[in-house]
Amino acid sequence: MKNRLASLDRVLLMGPGPSPVADNVYAAMATPMVGHMDPDFIALMDTIKEQLRTVFQTKNTVTMPMSGTGSAGMETAFVNMVERGDSVLILQNGVFGKRMIDVATRLGADVTELGFEWGTPVIPDKVAEALAAKKYDLVAIVHAETSTGVANPVEAVGRLVKEHGALYLVDCVTSLGGMEVALDRWGADICYSGTQKCLSCPPGLSPVSFSNAAIERLKRRKAKVPNWYLDLGMLTSYWEGHKRIYHHTAPISMNYALYQALANLLEEGLPNAYARHKAMHERLLAGLGELGFKPFVDASCRLPMLNLVTCPAGVDEAKLRERLRMEHHIEIGGGLGALAGKVLRIGVMGEGARPEPVDRLIKAMAACVR
Amino acid sequence: MKNRLASLDRVLLMGPGPSPVADNVYAAMATPMVGHMDPDFIALMDTIKEQLRTVFQTKNTVTMPMSGTGSAGMETAFVNMVERGDSVLILQNGVFGKRMIDVATRLGADVTELGFEWGTPVIPDKVAEALAAKKYDLVAIVHAETSTGVANPVEAVGRLVKEHGALYLVDCVTSLGGMEVALDRWGADICYSGTQKCLSCPPGLSPVSFSNAAIERLKRRKAKVPNWYLDLGMLTSYWEGHKRIYHHTAPISMNYALYQALANLLEEGLPNAYARHKAMHERLLAGLGELGFKPFVDASCRLPMLNLVTCPAGVDEAKLRERLRMEHHIEIGGGLGALAGKVLRIGVMGEGARPEPVDRLIKAMAACVR
Repeated sequence: MKNRLASLDRVLLMGPGPSPVADNVYAAMATPMVGHMDPDFIALMDTIKEQLRTVFQTKNTVTMPMSGTGSAGMETAFVNMVERGDSVLILQNGVFGKRMIDVATRLGADVTELGFEWGTPVIPDKVAEALAAKKYDLVAIVHAETSTGVANPVEAVGRLVKEHGALYLVDCVTSLGGMEVALDRWGADICYSGTQKCLSCPPGLSPVSFSNAAIERLKRRKAKVPNWYLDLGMLTSYWEGHKRIYHHTAPISMNYALYQALANLLEEGLPNAYARHKAMHERLLAGLGELGFKPFVDASCRLPMLNLVTCPAGVDEAKLRERLRMEHHIEIGGGLGALAGKVLRIGVMGEGARPEPVDRLIKAMAACVR
Repeated sequence: MKNRLASLDRVLLMGPGPSPVADNVYAAMATPMVGHMDPDFIALMDTIKEQLRTVFQTKNTVTMPMSGTGSAGMETAFVNMVERGDSVLILQNGVFGKRMIDVATRLGADVTELGFEWGTPVIPDKVAEALAAKKYDLVAIVHAETSTGVANPVEAVGRLVKEHGALYLVDCVTSLGGMEVALDRWGADICYSGTQKCLSCPPGLSPVSFSNAAIERLKRRKAKVPNWYLDLGMLTSYWEGHKRIYHHTAPISMNYALYQALANLLEEGLPNAYARHKAMHERLLAGLGELGFKPFVDASCRLPMLNLVTCPAGVDEAKLRERLRMEHHIEIGGGLGALAGKVLRIGVMGEGARPEPVDRLIKAMAACVR
């Protein structure tokens, strides 16, 4: 029988995720499995929780990976924290803010959308006005908006949210590991991320963290969480405590990979990893600038790990991506939503945020546009 | 830094799952990734769908793996098919039937439970009575009840359900690949499985299949599916058709593993795999019978891949499991729910359903009880 995997192209992943994976993370995934209730696995779960607390910069007890990709983390956050009729303010300046609105609305929340122009950040003064005008149970924001390349001012917004006593939810899917994430300092109560961005781990898990205030909210629910698979109370009975209670069969191999990816990151040190992402972001923009590509986002709020650029005149973005993939075996991303066809999205994430892959990409793009 | 994975024990997995994984499946998981929108990955998705249709014995177009473990498949089935107030009949004779009740109730369904003694099968005549007494939108059953080791008469029940015009949901988590699953012949409209049982693939995905009637029901929904992550309509836009629409970042590496595990199974041939599970089940019970272990389930409805046995007098089941794990590096399972402390649950699943692991287990159990 023909083996389809043997003929897969070997692609350098420089899009908005998944990002390149280190050899020792691939090897970790291929480690022979133990059971999901095995004492060795339970000990590893405890290590992963500690690693995650370090990268999230939090003391939150309830910090663990959910058994689904980043969007499962978003679902977990809303389905556990929101009940029908709860008032939710969503600060929207991209596809992932829009997705939050869809998720929360499906759950029957009373959603208010506060929108900002795509490619620009959330403006704290506007948030303050909205918070003064209505009482909200929860305020949600995306730290690193992967669809626009914008970093939102999550710390400033957090201060406002805390003044008004709402729960504060921050999407850190793309930021975690590539720029500072500091849940406790920000006052973030609910956070989720993904493994396939700056953690450089294959997609499959979504690390989440919930503050004590969030857990208190969970305990005050009137109705059971309308999602058995993502029920946080049951999940903590599996992930916490002396005697673990079986919930679902955790994806063992993905947890091995996450452990190794986090070990790699912590061995490098978080400040070093942040600095590396910033340096590679600058290297990328400098190289692409010489080719006539222009940053889409103002320098004041550019993300380091996800770069939106517009093409020089005469360059078709879709054809460029096609040539990069087919001739140079490099993946980059196109625009999402309203930005489809207008921008390129280039990731320098995790193992992709190193000189060799960045230079290879610049060289390939030069070959395509010259 | 100490590498925790290097010191993990190497365990023979003979419990209720996860099951042993073939070397080429581990290798598949470590294959360098392409992106989730990459043409190579989309071609592989098409292959996986075809493979799944073969093992499910169905022509259902909507047949694909969900990005979560088996319980995410159960959640997917109910959250897409059931709306608040829908009448649902759940045939319950174990933990996974109970779980269905919990899942459906959380979603606001009008749930009727028809219970049967644990360790015995669902009785079609009782189902016929229930169907005559009330009109149901959906009837749900577990094919292979992993908590009791019982095979339910899904084909006979299917005929009754079809006569009454309800949708028919069958949980095939543990049966798929280890005994015949024939969705189209059974008249099953909704089915989900897991990868970590008889497919011998690490946990992380849940193959599902939906009939045309199920998809028609989805289209008739009044409200959006209250679960963005598991929304079947959006997922089919990613998994089907000429132009794929991004939904979430699929767990690429898990799909590589599933592809390889399904390729292994189809290369062996489904009838051969079923016969192998049955032969290893008999070999296990014969060996354990000599040691004084007795089957918990009547021979007429025993599952081949999941064997419940009671211990000989004087043997403590928890201590036996502990010794097997610590001294012999073999995992087997204990009882779940009402059967906790009363039975052992022994899997002969996938790669575990071969003479060498079965004999190793019997020998180790002999050493523990003699």
